[in-house]
Amino acid sequence: MRRLLFKIQYDGTAYHGWQVQQNAVTVQEVFQNAVEKVFGERLDVKGCSRTDSGVHANEYYVSLDTDMDIAEKNAVLALNTYLPDDISVIACREVSLDFHPRYSCKYKQYVYKIYNGEIRNPFLKSYALHYKWRLDEELLNREAQAFVGSHDFSGFSSVKCDVEDTVRCVKAARVYRENDMVYFEVEADGFLYNMVRIMVGTLLFINEGKIKAGELPEIIESLDRTRAGKTAPPHGLYLNKVVY
Amino acid sequence: MRRLLFKIQYDGTAYHGWQVQQNAVTVQEVFQNAVEKVFGERLDVKGCSRTDSGVHANEYYVSLDTDMDIAEKNAVLALNTYLPDDISVIACREVSLDFHPRYSCKYKQYVYKIYNGEIRNPFLKSYALHYKWRLDEELLNREAQAFVGSHDFSGFSSVKCDVEDTVRCVKAARVYRENDMVYFEVEADGFLYNMVRIMVGTLLFINEGKIKAGELPEIIESLDRTRAGKTAPPHGLYLNKVVY
Repeated sequence: MRRLLFKIQYDGTAYHGWQVQQNAVTVQEVFQNAVEKVFGERLDVKGCSRTDSGVHANEYYVSLDTDMDIAEKNAVLALNTYLPDDISVIACREVSLDFHPRYSCKYKQYVYKIYNGEIRNPFLKSYALHYKWRLDEELLNREAQAFVGSHDFSGFSSVKCDVEDTVRCVKAARVYRENDMVYFEVEADGFLYNMVRIMVGTLLFINEGKIKAGELPEIIESLDRTRAGKTAPPHGLYLNKVVY
Repeated sequence: MRRLLFKIQYDGTAYHGWQVQQNAVTVQEVFQNAVEKVFGERLDVKGCSRTDSGVHANEYYVSLDTDMDIAEKNAVLALNTYLPDDISVIACREVSLDFHPRYSCKYKQYVYKIYNGEIRNPFLKSYALHYKWRLDEELLNREAQAFVGSHDFSGFSSVKCDVEDTVRCVKAARVYRENDMVYFEVEADGFLYNMVRIMVGTLLFINEGKIKAGELPEIIESLDRTRAGKTAPPHGLYLNKVVY
């Protein structure tokens, strides 16, 4: 028995997130179908994270166990043949049998893209939030530092979130601009449901003066979802890096 | 009566090209619907070019005649409110009543994007042709110079093309690379049906040795469609510039 770990990339536009669901197409299901064609059997594939409907992945990891003696490079080529154009396998390597793509992860980085041009860019419709009022990326970068550290992020998660431990350690947060595109990058040992999207919605509220500069530490401490901003839409969000 | 000229931009993925057709959604139809909402009547809108199904426009011009005394800036804002996210109006200006977006055009520039990475990029699925064999952009740039000048391009147009005069003057052609993306840019006073896509398909044949370097002038002169390459797919093609 070998455990293979695949690094993949996907455009989440057409998918209801990673995890298999009834009556909705997910990345996991489509990946399992391709695996079945290549490996000749229905194998359980494990992902590194649940992602929401419409969320993208620049880097995502999937593992499966097989007895097949297939070269890693050939597994990549074969899977890409059977996967649709919006999912790509980038690499494959063998890992030890106690490796788990989700639980072996040290930290993850998400990036949220905001297109800050006055007029929307039709080519970014599914790839960045369009926000036409000028973003003050320097202010938002300073404010975002309040997220860094170990905090109970209950106030930054959706009611759907049923985990018991809501403390997460944010290693780094950064807001920066490249021309009309503003990026929010955040690294943590884990993320609660909708956590990054609520962080982004809260930063937008700060930009609009609906939340005052300096108030973020208190809002985090309050554990009160209603004091944070709205949940930003999924199509600007990318799982960007997974570190093992 | 005033003639307004709109500069627009669109992602052609969801459309069967510009021109209104039975049983297929086109950019013209969707634009006319938005115009009807803003101007209160069904107006004839004229485009600068027919574009094929799936082809994009970084820059496209549309005109209409109206008696309405609407400020140009407000017309832009209002149309963007009623247009879907994959079509944007960038600007509007009044032009003289003898201006025609198609016939007043001095020249147009198209660009064709080829993603030349070994593994496909899921985010470029609808925005660039994926071609995994290494492209020799310097060779192709030299070869593409054969397109420049006034030529009868009958051999580089589809049978659907029923125009009488098939001579077009190509002002410039260029192949260049930025990392894994290779661009073919071509400027001409006009283009026959599928002309750019057949030029690209022919360059790919040169890259593959199916057409020898140096043969292009003879292939153009032959006026024989079967000697040129395949018609490259539409999703890599962008109308990039229209000069009046």
